[in-house]
Amino acid sequence: MTYKETAYAPYDFANRRHIGPSPAEMTEMLEAVGAPSLDALIDQIVPDDIRLKTPMTWGKALSEQGVLAKLRSVADKNRVMTSFIGQGYHGTVTPPPIQRNIFENPAWYTAYTPYQPEISQGRLEALLNYQTMIADLTALDVANASLLDEGTAAAEAVALCQRSAKSKATAFFVDQDCHPQTIAVVKTRAEALGWTVVTGNPFADLDPAAVFGALFQYPGTYGHVHDFTDVIAKLHAAGALACVAADPLALTVLKAPGEMGADIAIGTTQRFGVPMGYGGPHAAYMAVKDALKRNMPGRIVGVSIDARGNRAYRLSLQTREQHIRREKATSNVCTAQALLAVMASMYAVFHGPEGLKAIAERIHRKTVRLANGLEAAGFKVEPAAFFDTITIEVGAVQGAILKSAEAEGINLRRVGTTKIGISLDERATRAHTEAIWRAFGIDRRDDDLSHDYRLPQALVRSSDYLTHPVFHMNRAEAEMTRYMRRLADRDLALDRAMIPLGSCTMKLNATAEMMALSWPQFADVHPFAPETQTAGYAEMLRDLEAKLCLVTGYNAFSMQPNSGAQGEYAGLLTIQAYHRARGEGHRDVCLIPTSAHGTNPASAQMVGMKVVVVRVADNGDIDLDDFRAKAEAHAANLAACMITYPSTHGVFETTVREICQITHQHGGQVYLDGANMNAMVGLSRPGDIGSDVSHLNLHKTFAIPHGGGGPGMGPIGVKAHLAPYLPGNPMQADGGAVSAAPYGSASILLISWAYCLLMGGEGLTQATKVAILNANYIASRLKAAYPILYSAGGRVAHECILDTRVMKDRAGVTVDDVAKRLVDCGFHAPTMSWPVAGTLMVEPTESEPKAELDRFIAAMLGIAAEVEAIVEGKLDAEDNPLKRAPHTVEDLVGDWNRPYSREAACFPAGAFRVDKYWSPVNRVDNVYGDRHLICSCPPLESYAEAAE
Amino acid sequence: MTYKETAYAPYDFANRRHIGPSPAEMTEMLEAVGAPSLDALIDQIVPDDIRLKTPMTWGKALSEQGVLAKLRSVADKNRVMTSFIGQGYHGTVTPPPIQRNIFENPAWYTAYTPYQPEISQGRLEALLNYQTMIADLTALDVANASLLDEGTAAAEAVALCQRSAKSKATAFFVDQDCHPQTIAVVKTRAEALGWTVVTGNPFADLDPAAVFGALFQYPGTYGHVHDFTDVIAKLHAAGALACVAADPLALTVLKAPGEMGADIAIGTTQRFGVPMGYGGPHAAYMAVKDALKRNMPGRIVGVSIDARGNRAYRLSLQTREQHIRREKATSNVCTAQALLAVMASMYAVFHGPEGLKAIAERIHRKTVRLANGLEAAGFKVEPAAFFDTITIEVGAVQGAILKSAEAEGINLRRVGTTKIGISLDERATRAHTEAIWRAFGIDRRDDDLSHDYRLPQALVRSSDYLTHPVFHMNRAEAEMTRYMRRLADRDLALDRAMIPLGSCTMKLNATAEMMALSWPQFADVHPFAPETQTAGYAEMLRDLEAKLCLVTGYNAFSMQPNSGAQGEYAGLLTIQAYHRARGEGHRDVCLIPTSAHGTNPASAQMVGMKVVVVRVADNGDIDLDDFRAKAEAHAANLAACMITYPSTHGVFETTVREICQITHQHGGQVYLDGANMNAMVGLSRPGDIGSDVSHLNLHKTFAIPHGGGGPGMGPIGVKAHLAPYLPGNPMQADGGAVSAAPYGSASILLISWAYCLLMGGEGLTQATKVAILNANYIASRLKAAYPILYSAGGRVAHECILDTRVMKDRAGVTVDDVAKRLVDCGFHAPTMSWPVAGTLMVEPTESEPKAELDRFIAAMLGIAAEVEAIVEGKLDAEDNPLKRAPHTVEDLVGDWNRPYSREAACFPAGAFRVDKYWSPVNRVDNVYGDRHLICSCPPLESYAEAAE
Repeated sequence: MTYKETAYAPYDFANRRHIGPSPAEMTEMLEAVGAPSLDALIDQIVPDDIRLKTPMTWGKALSEQGVLAKLRSVADKNRVMTSFIGQGYHGTVTPPPIQRNIFENPAWYTAYTPYQPEISQGRLEALLNYQTMIADLTALDVANASLLDEGTAAAEAVALCQRSAKSKATAFFVDQDCHPQTIAVVKTRAEALGWTVVTGNPFADLDPAAVFGALFQYPGTYGHVHDFTDVIAKLHAAGALACVAADPLALTVLKAPGEMGADIAIGTTQRFGVPMGYGGPHAAYMAVKDALKRNMPGRIVGVSIDARGNRAYRLSLQTREQHIRREKATSNVCTAQALLAVMASMYAVFHGPEGLKAIAERIHRKTVRLANGLEAAGFKVEPAAFFDTITIEVGAVQGAILKSAEAEGINLRRVGTTKIGISLDERATRAHTEAIWRAFGIDRRDDDLSHDYRLPQALVRSSDYLTHPVFHMNRAEAEMTRYMRRLADRDLALDRAMIPLGSCTMKLNATAEMMALSWPQFADVHPFAPETQTAGYAEMLRDLEAKLCLVTGYNAFSMQPNSGAQGEYAGLLTIQAYHRARGEGHRDVCLIPTSAHGTNPASAQMVGMKVVVVRVADNGDIDLDDFRAKAEAHAANLAACMITYPSTHGVFETTVREICQITHQHGGQVYLDGANMNAMVGLSRPGDIGSDVSHLNLHKTFAIPHGGGGPGMGPIGVKAHLAPYLPGNPMQADGGAVSAAPYGSASILLISWAYCLLMGGEGLTQATKVAILNANYIASRLKAAYPILYSAGGRVAHECILDTRVMKDRAGVTVDDVAKRLVDCGFHAPTMSWPVAGTLMVEPTESEPKAELDRFIAAMLGIAAEVEAIVEGKLDAEDNPLKRAPHTVEDLVGDWNRPYSREAACFPAGAFRVDKYWSPVNRVDNVYGDRHLICSCPPLESYAEAAE
Repeated sequence: MTYKETAYAPYDFANRRHIGPSPAEMTEMLEAVGAPSLDALIDQIVPDDIRLKTPMTWGKALSEQGVLAKLRSVADKNRVMTSFIGQGYHGTVTPPPIQRNIFENPAWYTAYTPYQPEISQGRLEALLNYQTMIADLTALDVANASLLDEGTAAAEAVALCQRSAKSKATAFFVDQDCHPQTIAVVKTRAEALGWTVVTGNPFADLDPAAVFGALFQYPGTYGHVHDFTDVIAKLHAAGALACVAADPLALTVLKAPGEMGADIAIGTTQRFGVPMGYGGPHAAYMAVKDALKRNMPGRIVGVSIDARGNRAYRLSLQTREQHIRREKATSNVCTAQALLAVMASMYAVFHGPEGLKAIAERIHRKTVRLANGLEAAGFKVEPAAFFDTITIEVGAVQGAILKSAEAEGINLRRVGTTKIGISLDERATRAHTEAIWRAFGIDRRDDDLSHDYRLPQALVRSSDYLTHPVFHMNRAEAEMTRYMRRLADRDLALDRAMIPLGSCTMKLNATAEMMALSWPQFADVHPFAPETQTAGYAEMLRDLEAKLCLVTGYNAFSMQPNSGAQGEYAGLLTIQAYHRARGEGHRDVCLIPTSAHGTNPASAQMVGMKVVVVRVADNGDIDLDDFRAKAEAHAANLAACMITYPSTHGVFETTVREICQITHQHGGQVYLDGANMNAMVGLSRPGDIGSDVSHLNLHKTFAIPHGGGGPGMGPIGVKAHLAPYLPGNPMQADGGAVSAAPYGSASILLISWAYCLLMGGEGLTQATKVAILNANYIASRLKAAYPILYSAGGRVAHECILDTRVMKDRAGVTVDDVAKRLVDCGFHAPTMSWPVAGTLMVEPTESEPKAELDRFIAAMLGIAAEVEAIVEGKLDAEDNPLKRAPHTVEDLVGDWNRPYSREAACFPAGAFRVDKYWSPVNRVDNVYGDRHLICSCPPLESYAEAAE
């Protein structure tokens, strides 16, 4: 029969679901842009000499259903075991309400870093809870809002000691009882900067006068619990500083580092309800004495007030890429693990101090009974007093016992060649204890339930913690769920509106890409589990690496760096190791254009390179003459150049190949920052145009959500000649590890892999094109109202810079006013004042449909019209909707003696009428916040004060 | 060592997570109530002679972690196969954004039925989309907002025909090509009412003059696609009505029932993205011609306006238990499947008409290729033209082929003893086709991708559908996710506030209880899958039944009834069958007190019983003398009495045992309505106090969420003598099936089972006690402002009735005004005007913490104070916050010439300041809505009109 068929592909994820504009919308947009076709537009924009000539492909893209089936089959290749390996990673129970309402809730995971405090009050409160929890547990004054992992936190602590200690020594002492991966990461970081790392027994081998600081593990990696009070006093006497890497769960029953006099405490909050995920992501913490707080790396949430004088949270003492004092930076930390820190803080709210302590005691009692049974059978258990970890001398049968435990479904830790380590966790049951005994050849019931304790008596904690009311709220699920919902509703994330942040690539984080993260086969895998149990992860890692190689033109990848900045650092370390291996270790100059991300020079200095700054021409391009001159001048010592492509100004420079050639000609290596990779995928490959190494921000280009300020992943790709020098495994002696786990935050790599499978090479390429179309559409529609900086032939790449400086001059309206007014319109602001002060950088990404772009355009044009109204005297120069933005319900309810209407205030162009987003606070006072620095939950009385 | 241990049980789900008040809060509350202890309070309230004397227990309660492990182990006992059995149940792809953002989102699943339209605009819009979709696809005028399943929808259609047809015949014709379970359910329903069901071939066996209506299946259960136009014309000529049971996916390519002249279409929308779940829940639909709309059962969403004249949605022509005209009712349908209807409608929005048609075509092409391959190998395939279902004559090898297919992981349908049925679905792949061929002994590749069609040429659809813009919105995930979020945010559900609805038991729906529903081992099981594949479900069902027997004192349960009203109906059928088996089929009188739920008399009439109404005394108790008198008067024909316990007035009547005795004495059976079981669990058992049968509202007492108006489950428990007469399996010839699937909406039974496992018998008992405490706490705190009706000795049971009539008299404030004002306070209203007009019935449940109870109390006292202000002349009698409630942002933004302040309007006592819930519309005009009945999405132009 004849039948007219529908030409519609309902399962085409790339074109139907991921890419925002429909085909019909794209036609309209191309017309607005003045391009005959999408390909013609791309040809106008992407230089021919860097174009990929053959289509990128790896076969047919999968449907959402297909990718879930594929993920399930890979999941089934991992064996879910009970891991009592410890070493900083523990089984934990994620409370179901936290899993569903935070970890799996786009309102939380699609949010951006809370730089715009007015639309971030929910997660800022949760992060302030986190800081309060850490400060309390460690008994230190100030905590930050999380770091990447315990290893990098330790490395940051070393650098903080070096910056802050009176001692001028160049060595740092590391307790031999620190976790091996921590020692590896610290060594990498210290050695790059020329500091010596001394490991040993702190009670025997530590010479306080010889070091600028020392790091101790508490409890130690083999279970010992020592009092460091005296050692710390000696360090202080010698002008050195003391850090303690502490398990926060142990601190509920053990004397706190601050009570021993420690200056710094670091550690991981993984076991506060965050799955192991084969290494991450989890939130590490750092807490310091008050005197060190302004030197502390990472983000710190503080308490301030808004324009009405009401309490409001904000990031204090901001350390972010744009704010780093570039050439003077000593840390490039600009990513936190916000989502995981929020989870850990909610775990503490959920359990309260009583619950946390009960959990710790339960684990301890189980460990005591386990040790009793082993000792009764004649095994030698170390140490005599412990928290949750014991080590057993077993001699030649080590392998047999480990194998026997594995047969019981349990992983124990191989310690040396004759010992076995065991760390129990909150999932441990009596059945587990009996299974471990069986593995040791002991037939015994775990039925002696007498409550025996073996905590070191002198170290039992007597001080209070988590006394703030938030940790004592009603813990019924009804109340907990509502608390999480209230906080979520205060924030504006991708699930409600586009987030047009230039350089941040806030694209869709598709549900199908996220679902597998909750599956036990991926969530409950210890990073040091035997390879025989992780075949699924291995398959995913291999395939993802192969695809990233295809995308970039590189030959090998390291998945270890767990942030973009970590990627830069790892890439430069790789270059450094390459030079050293060739006997050219003296090469230490790194050319960086002034337009670079602030992390670039910071990373260069973290590997001890000298930064030489290259000028940028007026059109935003690197000044080729200056580049050539500086490369020649430093030819003898040229180590690398760091460039961003397309440039941080959003332009495909035509000189990129030449810059690579010049660098190579003078013996340097090219580091191409992959931050803007979303404009290249499928169109151009760094590896083809002369670059040697790049990091990829998987949380930008490859669909990992920003989590409200982390997690992220920054794997690095290299050409073949650099492959031997990639970061080493932190558990092997090969050196060069940059993060604690072999594959960084491994579990979220599943997101990028699923994204690649769903999109296919063709879909990724189309996405890049549409990202460029979307940016040009916005630029075309807004250029009459906002001059577009750095366009080339009237075109931009995947982002555009809108100049608002003329508004300042004509009407006194600042870029900040525009950003805050956008909140009234229901939008997160674009990137502010970067790379050029007084501008807004807009990156719509390919995921935004035309309707949302049009809503944004309407909002921006409405703002421009308001500026004109000021110029024309129709709006007051000071008391106008721009200066007063964002407007809140409090404004509406109160008296209104303003020269513009409530309607004009609250429903500017672009704002939804029924579904309007209401900022919970008026404009936040930044100066007040920095002047009155409060970084933990304020006491209840102070709320009352604020209300007065 | 000595060590002071924490006395805190962090994993105690019952007392820490489910039960709202903490131990300290309970102490305070008992003090307010004036009771020395919780047990003393219970002793005051629950009559001693009905008390359970031994504690209810089934061993230690599981932790959340433990229950998830248990569910996983049970899940692993189900075998997930690909089921091409068809018969109304198909594999489907739930779009991941719909799964995560609706099915797994408490904002959607914890909502109540949208009787309060102001706080339900989001789901009302989604349900209106559903109605539009059904009306379009069936080409009929009006659709309702869903029914329970296709079988019960067919039974409702039969009753609708009987009510509406001109014909006075007493028989109904059912196409022999209807699904067997549909025929079974229709037979049960019809026979109870004395109507004859004739099955046969509509083209050979149907005598239009002999029937009041006929039901046809389209496509037929074996795949045939017939044009019923002529048969329908003949029925109409004879004064009979025609119903078509149609697959909505098939209707995207086939001529619609309305285009054939059908009066009624029914069917299931399961394959629109709702997992099979071993039988449910799914949304069935009904659509009718305009002339029948006011007789249609179920809920209908309509369009009206609010107090500002803005468009607002609401339920039209409400059919609910409170509104049923009691003794005249002919349907007891008061539950829909809102959550599943919302999912199905979103599936249609997600795919649009092009996508749905493409999916249908894809399935059809695959079926054609499958048939081609079978025919090429010599098999006889029926019919010649089909949509997605074919039947193959295989003779004696039927069993061998079925077994061989099962070995390939595929279930096919056993048809008779020599045929095999196959229905493909949107999950079918070429690999499946090849596997089926292998099962038939055919070695063939599915690589002939020519697009062949075998739709019956005369029945190819040419008319449009889903033309409304909502089905043509941008379908990118970014836009879809935001649309779902916007709708969710308009509604107020349990995830934001308590819902104090008396008799509805809106308790916590804990996350741990919900998670397993998304697992493929439970979601992807066909209700007629072989028992060898469903051992996990079987284990769960056995254990749940055992626990429910323990809870109720009954001896057996049927899990078939998929709503509370279905349970009533099934219970009365069971009683009827019992009498008939004893030769007392003449017994047909059912005693029902005036205080009963409206569903009680409706259910009685559905089984053909005569309702005799028993008086209620002034104190709310059944008038024992009247009861005795009526029982005696009707002793010869007494079939049953239906009582609710504790009474619908929220009181433990002391006469319940006596009422049971009187009933038995006169040959009747006692039906005890389990609606108020939340006041009994662990304290008293219906089976012990003389009742013979009860239904349990698992969506009330046993933690199944209300889903915004369904799903629910109403299994019935019986004493041993009634067990043989429980509903039969719809797939077996034993008769008496009340719903389409053997275990009703089987998948959600997992929720109740998990709830039982998490709570333990002790936890459930404590929950009951705290539910009673919470109700008494509210009564104590509010009694000075609101007289409490029907308290006994100053105490209530698990709910309390607040009298507002005095407010009407003194200040003209109606119960509606109070309910709407509560919206301003951020609360769903209590049950209004039931069981007594002018009152509010409040049931806080055990899950609400004291802080939330106090917030509600503050709101209610604030309202009482406002009423006093009117009385005192401080507030205007007409223009006051009560009459104007709920207030919206539109009120705030616009001019304000009211005699009370914006502050007073928007922030009454109880309202959150920062996190205030804003109703999206002002008070909805009910009269306008019923007068201008619009039950599908209004055209876009009309939105513009409304805005003017």
